[in-house]
Amino acid sequence: MIILKLMLKARIKRRSKAMNNYILKNENAVYYECGYSCDNVIFIKLGKESFFITDARYTVEATLEVKTAQVIESSNLIAKAKEILKKSKIKKIVFDGNDFTYNTYTNLTADLKIKFINKVNFSQAKRMIKSEEEIAILMTAAKLGRAGFKKLAAYIQENGSNKKETFLHFKAIESMSQRGKLELSFDPIVAINKNAAKPHALPTSKKLSQNDLLLVDAGVKYKRYCSDRTCVAAVDFENFNFKREQKFKSKKHQKIYDIVYKAQLNAINNAKSGMKASEIDNLTRSIIKKAGYEKQYVHSTGHGVGLDIHEYPFINSKSDVIIEDNMVFTIEPGIYIPGEFGVRIEDTVVMKNGRAIIL
Amino acid sequence: MIILKLMLKARIKRRSKAMNNYILKNENAVYYECGYSCDNVIFIKLGKESFFITDARYTVEATLEVKTAQVIESSNLIAKAKEILKKSKIKKIVFDGNDFTYNTYTNLTADLKIKFINKVNFSQAKRMIKSEEEIAILMTAAKLGRAGFKKLAAYIQENGSNKKETFLHFKAIESMSQRGKLELSFDPIVAINKNAAKPHALPTSKKLSQNDLLLVDAGVKYKRYCSDRTCVAAVDFENFNFKREQKFKSKKHQKIYDIVYKAQLNAINNAKSGMKASEIDNLTRSIIKKAGYEKQYVHSTGHGVGLDIHEYPFINSKSDVIIEDNMVFTIEPGIYIPGEFGVRIEDTVVMKNGRAIIL
Repeated sequence: MIILKLMLKARIKRRSKAMNNYILKNENAVYYECGYSCDNVIFIKLGKESFFITDARYTVEATLEVKTAQVIESSNLIAKAKEILKKSKIKKIVFDGNDFTYNTYTNLTADLKIKFINKVNFSQAKRMIKSEEEIAILMTAAKLGRAGFKKLAAYIQENGSNKKETFLHFKAIESMSQRGKLELSFDPIVAINKNAAKPHALPTSKKLSQNDLLLVDAGVKYKRYCSDRTCVAAVDFENFNFKREQKFKSKKHQKIYDIVYKAQLNAINNAKSGMKASEIDNLTRSIIKKAGYEKQYVHSTGHGVGLDIHEYPFINSKSDVIIEDNMVFTIEPGIYIPGEFGVRIEDTVVMKNGRAIIL
Repeated sequence: MIILKLMLKARIKRRSKAMNNYILKNENAVYYECGYSCDNVIFIKLGKESFFITDARYTVEATLEVKTAQVIESSNLIAKAKEILKKSKIKKIVFDGNDFTYNTYTNLTADLKIKFINKVNFSQAKRMIKSEEEIAILMTAAKLGRAGFKKLAAYIQENGSNKKETFLHFKAIESMSQRGKLELSFDPIVAINKNAAKPHALPTSKKLSQNDLLLVDAGVKYKRYCSDRTCVAAVDFENFNFKREQKFKSKKHQKIYDIVYKAQLNAINNAKSGMKASEIDNLTRSIIKKAGYEKQYVHSTGHGVGLDIHEYPFINSKSDVIIEDNMVFTIEPGIYIPGEFGVRIEDTVVMKNGRAIIL
């Protein structure tokens, strides 16, 4: 009950903070506002009025797709934004200081008698609790991502022996994207043995062999929403798969894999709505710490997933954010042993009825 | 001779502007300074001393690869940069206001008694005239790019009939990257008929047919340097190629193609070192204007190519930049007829002995 009250408070707080006037440049933030976006846009919300300012390349599509804003074409987006702001006679407007370069901000604000209020990631904060519609889309993205992993596994079992990381990386793009049909959430990570010890490994010319350890981190987009998953596989060309149960030839591989897996399951099974994000982080970290590998767990437990591949809530040891139903985030503990190998196991979960469900 | 004098003046001006103190965040700008870079770095030059500040993920490689700067590891790059700047006792430092977000700039400069001088694209300005070594690398990149186009053409002739744009887009990635061996300069554009009328088309489910017009804009990276080329082909599954001579079934396709081709050749054959960039722009624009399609030529003639896919010099109607030997840029006129088709023909050239040579 106390938990429920806390949640209620947090929700009300967020709602009462609803902002009347704000300005956005980030492509995903703008998409969230009006169901369409492009790589050259300024979006302005002034009370009940909204403006989608873009250049001639995008106005035809924007006019068709933008639902809740007036589409304005301009070859100088900043000048047009200034014009609208001057006319409006508003006194203050919210912006995100990470969303504007120094020069864009300087040009935009010069000669304007409006106070610009810097709220970092205010769009991500609005997007933190997903609607049922968004969750359905994220589920489809996860399903498509899973199908990509299956396809890649089938290829590796059949033909993966002696193939270079660079080529397997290409095959990951091929499998995940369904040969170009889907956009990817990010450039996949495909790393064998010691390359897997680097959390952000680039593919090398290392070739895949029986009994290697293979890490694949990849995702796809569906209706602009991202999937995100990391699997580590024991390479066996007789029976290759990305299932959670993996049998490694190397005892050390197996030991580390089992610790990371246990840490991940502990968080998935015990995460509850009402917890702080830091408490969920501790659900993975405590297991890895107990096993003596705390120092080799060099990153946080996870991050929110939605239109951005990394968004709120961030699941780390310092975050006081209260986790609520309909938040979507990854749980991805890892142990990295430089020069040897690394293991990271990642799933994206949604909080529903107080518990984490793998998408 | 007047031309030569002008060139000399421009060179001297650039050299006398050599800056003692500057700070950079852009990955390619930092690579140019010290032969290594990564996606989380601040580079500081203070007279003869240089600092490469990065996080723990990159310090091992940076220490091996960075030639001319001290590598410093930090989990808070901005704090570390401030520390170095405070110690230095310098009075002013150059930065690029497009290279820093508003928040990064604000954090970096808070409590510092140093004047930050905003010079937009000062790194690109330094990189505008390529060394012989850089030109050799750019030539290899161009050659590899050309091989990718050939491979794609062979695939299309054999199997391209009835294939979707999205799939051909994937095949372009496959061919250009040599199945993952090379990084791409940018996401390729593959556009059939009316989709080619959009200068930045996204692939659709439109299928390729005999006598279609197919536009492909793609490039690869070699040692971080980019290639860039656009071809338009008359689709003939008996004899498909990306050569400059194309025979279209449609008279309108042929007419527009021939105008654009003539415009491009006019610029390649008549561009001279000592000209203003705007004069080179006029070499393509005047031909297209004469043919009555000026309004359908919706962009500038070209852009510099190097570590960035778009860099100095920009070849447009307003640029006073004097073109010099060892500059590398694209010549890419186009005509776009909305709802029907578009033609753009692009090559990357280097200025040598006063003339443009296709890389």
